[in-house]
Amino acid sequence: MSKSVRAFIFDVYGTLFDVHSVKEAVETLYPGKGESISQTWRKKQLEYSFLRQLMGTYRSFWEITKDALRYALKENERSIPSEIEEFLMEAYLHLTPFPEVHEVLLQLRNKTLAVFSNGSHDMLDPLIDHSLFGELFDDVVSVDEVKQYKPTPAAYDHTLHTLKVSRKEVLFISSNGWDISGAKNFGFHTAWINRNKLPIEELDLHPDAIYEDLTGILEWI
Amino acid sequence: MSKSVRAFIFDVYGTLFDVHSVKEAVETLYPGKGESISQTWRKKQLEYSFLRQLMGTYRSFWEITKDALRYALKENERSIPSEIEEFLMEAYLHLTPFPEVHEVLLQLRNKTLAVFSNGSHDMLDPLIDHSLFGELFDDVVSVDEVKQYKPTPAAYDHTLHTLKVSRKEVLFISSNGWDISGAKNFGFHTAWINRNKLPIEELDLHPDAIYEDLTGILEWI
Repeated sequence: MSKSVRAFIFDVYGTLFDVHSVKEAVETLYPGKGESISQTWRKKQLEYSFLRQLMGTYRSFWEITKDALRYALKENERSIPSEIEEFLMEAYLHLTPFPEVHEVLLQLRNKTLAVFSNGSHDMLDPLIDHSLFGELFDDVVSVDEVKQYKPTPAAYDHTLHTLKVSRKEVLFISSNGWDISGAKNFGFHTAWINRNKLPIEELDLHPDAIYEDLTGILEWI
Repeated sequence: MSKSVRAFIFDVYGTLFDVHSVKEAVETLYPGKGESISQTWRKKQLEYSFLRQLMGTYRSFWEITKDALRYALKENERSIPSEIEEFLMEAYLHLTPFPEVHEVLLQLRNKTLAVFSNGSHDMLDPLIDHSLFGELFDDVVSVDEVKQYKPTPAAYDHTLHTLKVSRKEVLFISSNGWDISGAKNFGFHTAWINRNKLPIEELDLHPDAIYEDLTGILEWI
């Protein structure tokens, strides 16, 4: 536990906001297939961000999310009317925050607070701005500003320039094991919010702390 | 269909060899869990190659495959005796080729034939050498020689230097959609062996040809 932490940087999807409501939207349209379609959707969304970074063919996360949705629907259904695509994509703009988020952020008010996401501003800003705690953040940082997806070191590095902090002053918080690995590899302090009780990723990069929800990070004040 | 193709370069896992026997080995040890453990194993194997490439922390595919197995077993069981690990890893050295492989390769004898895999030589060589068609290949090329995983352009580029061909003279053959996207992005002709009737990846990179099995590529002679 380092008390030298000045900036708390949060991942967004799955960390601050529950993406469960996306599954519910899919289930509304495709009863009985909500689980399988939304699983493929999420899997391909991640995969496409990794693959495009590896191939050097960057495209924004909003577009990638749409591409992943198309793949998931094609795998399960034949046709994809554009109204359906729009309805499902809208779900990403209205996610429910996890219950503890607001209270935790209030207790961190004296620190530098930011979100840092693979999401592009067209999907991040509406979500953060419309939340009750949006104004508590000093900055909303997107990889889209440098077109380098997490977990590349270049992506995490971008937050240092934006927030004017050094890497040892940062606690990075994410529910995604691969994101925590990337942040640790870059040199951030890391807190893994292991909401789903998953094993630690086998990438030789252990998180500095593991919590069941965000309240655990208050130890770092 | 370009008749200017001089070199036929094959991916290995899922393309020449069926990885189904890996699932059977898992099922032997964990009855009823063969499917779920081996799915996680394969998923993490791929993911770890992508993530390590993105983070700049290369490790050989044999080691990554072991790491992925550990994750998959931890997700499902508590303890992982090292004999179990060894038994399951061994399965990768004794895969069954798809039935049409040998005959197709025989018909391509006048061409330059090579395999090109993310697999390291410690896992590739025993597999290829012990197959009936191993001697038909002019070369066994591994990304481990340059420590750049597919689908980076640098990985595919390595085959050109090794085989002394230009990219327009190559037909690259893989059953993995993401691998075909990477090869197409690099500038190879591509034939996707879509054994599982999956949708085309939504990465704006269409394969030049799609076949149900390898016999289709004989059109390119």
